Amino acid sequence: ALIAVLPGDGIGPEVVAQGTRLLKAVAERFGHSFELVEAPMGGVAIDLTGAPLPPETLALCQRADAVLLGAVGGPKWDPPAKVRPEQGLLALRKELGLYANLRPVAPFPALHDTSTLKPEVLRGVDLLVVRELTGGIYFGEKRREEDRAFDACVYTVDEVVRVVRDAASLARARRKRLTSVDKANVLETSRLWRAVTERVIREEFPDIELKHMLVDACAMHLIKRPADFDVIVTENMFGDILTDEAAMLSGSIGMLPSASLGANRRGLYEPIHGSAPDIAGRGVANPYGTLLSVAMLLRHSLGLEEEARAVESAVAASLEAGVLTADLVPPGTRPVATQEAGWAV
Amino acid sequence: ALIAVLPGDGIGPEVVAQGTRLLKAVAERFGHSFELVEAPMGGVAIDLTGAPLPPETLALCQRADAVLLGAVGGPKWDPPAKVRPEQGLLALRKELGLYANLRPVAPFPALHDTSTLKPEVLRGVDLLVVRELTGGIYFGEKRREEDRAFDACVYTVDEVVRVVRDAASLARARRKRLTSVDKANVLETSRLWRAVTERVIREEFPDIELKHMLVDACAMHLIKRPADFDVIVTENMFGDILTDEAAMLSGSIGMLPSASLGANRRGLYEPIHGSAPDIAGRGVANPYGTLLSVAMLLRHSLGLEEEARAVESAVAASLEAGVLTADLVPPGTRPVATQEAGWAV
Ligand SMILES: CC(C)[C@H](C(=O)O)[C@@H](O)C(=O)O
Ligand SMILES: CC(C)[C@H](C(=O)O)[C@@H](O)C(=O)O
Repeated sequence: ALIAVLPGDGIGPEVVAQGTRLLKAVAERFGHSFELVEAPMGGVAIDLTGAPLPPETLALCQRADAVLLGAVGGPKWDPPAKVRPEQGLLALRKELGLYANLRPVAPFPALHDTSTLKPEVLRGVDLLVVRELTGGIYFGEKRREEDRAFDACVYTVDEVVRVVRDAASLARARRKRLTSVDKANVLETSRLWRAVTERVIREEFPDIELKHMLVDACAMHLIKRPADFDVIVTENMFGDILTDEAAMLSGSIGMLPSASLGANRRGLYEPIHGSAPDIAGRGVANPYGTLLSVAMLLRHSLGLEEEARAVESAVAASLEAGVLTADLVPPGTRPVATQEAGWAV
Repeated sequence: ALIAVLPGDGIGPEVVAQGTRLLKAVAERFGHSFELVEAPMGGVAIDLTGAPLPPETLALCQRADAVLLGAVGGPKWDPPAKVRPEQGLLALRKELGLYANLRPVAPFPALHDTSTLKPEVLRGVDLLVVRELTGGIYFGEKRREEDRAFDACVYTVDEVVRVVRDAASLARARRKRLTSVDKANVLETSRLWRAVTERVIREEFPDIELKHMLVDACAMHLIKRPADFDVIVTENMFGDILTDEAAMLSGSIGMLPSASLGANRRGLYEPIHGSAPDIAGRGVANPYGTLLSVAMLLRHSLGLEEEARAVESAVAASLEAGVLTADLVPPGTRPVATQEAGWAV
């Protein structure tokens, strides 16, 4: 299998280094051969080539079976800069047709004390957010006139159908409950979203229990009773906000993996955290989100379920053993380095 | 002073009844005379007149010094219904020019155990969200074609300037720290927002410390280190989501008041919770959010600071005394009714 590796910016290279090390270990242990090819994307690509997603990088990703990404962005390329690292990531998602972004949140018991939420609230939390990733206000027309700015949010029926289908299929293999999140009391796109979701579930997934929830109410329920959720499906921007919030259930945003999938098995895998320029280069970043992203890569793009589970068990064991990075340790305890956590897994 | 009273739907009438009772008590105790005039708005107005904001109700609000509102909405008028209660609230905000929505979050120590967050995380939390209320995607053009839907998000320089000015003035009377929340790495409206905010603070509020934060990062920080925030200023939709999330810091969304203000002193005051149709009519709703909204009304529209503080102290005392509604009591304890909490204050 060919795996494109895009370390990106900030702590990206540090966490991705642990990811590639893990991929090599899995290949050796289970007798696979993975070809890992690195390429620049994001700020590093802007510095090298002027473009956040160079054509060679895109071509490599299109050829690959899967893409492993670190993180992109940093103050060096922030607005008002016209060419920004995030444009590379957005273009990559769009070009590869990765419309479904899976963000599972299942806090490890070993980390229940790390969260700012009470441990009893975290018990039983096992939710999966499916975020629509190539539509909505992220990709609508943008305009700037002298004294006003404009962003268009657009959704088509087909865009909603395909992501809701994926989410419902995932719910079917889990607890069969789907929460669709929108703002139907205000937005036209949300009313379309709600009507289409309603129909898809009624016609194709009568065994799935569907609930609609307003995005503001969902932001509240995620903190109040997170164990109530099974699968959540929502549009691009709401998914962005709600998953960062939900990350707090797992103790640290550094813990969370994600998979971005399209119509075929090729996928893009990345931790949901950002490039964290403030701690970059110090070897203290949490690599678990990347390691768990590798597990998702093995499962979804390579069909290696046993290998994926082995990685997830190794992460759980390493957390139980107290191998905790700076974002995870209780005050007064010595954290381990990025490398050591990677090595432990 | 003339105060328009709009009970609205669901639990609205129950909580507003405690609000008007409190206003009468304040008038008597401090020797004021408040004229309270009730009018229909929301679902109840649709049922009575066909319109969610009847012209008479709007005229009354325009004449009034302040408006006290309960909540609007309910399954009876949900989409696909074409005329919806929320349209009345949105039209009222727009017609009265109430562009700045103040939502303070300062959890009462007596309720620290009620929150799903750990008490030590809540210590020192005292933040104020200033949400832009009459612009953005809420009021942009909406379109529905056969197989697609469209919402426009628009912001002008003037719309950003005025709300940022208000937020900065409020920060000046507090801890002088302002966090402006946007999604400048994706949205054109956010890049305008960020540039304008930057300029207003630099030119007019050099004493205020300004920080920009992406909305996804803010959703995380509100749960991780809420005590870090002083004043947050943000656009309409982000403010909607973040304030419902922040409400969880105070133990229950039933606790939170809000004030919507414009260019003059007239304001609209409402608890941030919804109409809660599931518990309506049972006399169990939490009236504290409404009572605290009355305090904001006294302060911002009537200039009665002493009276506002008296109300806030009475709420704190009543919580300390254990006068807790169903959403606030620990499991196994008997809650008080809406009325009793109102009476206690
Ligand atoms: C970097 C940014 C464009 C991106 C997004 O908003 O999608 C990030 O926040 C994410 O969630 O993957
Ligand atoms: C009822 C709804 C239109 C409203 C909003 O989204 O503004 C409510 O959620 C609020 O926050 O006041």
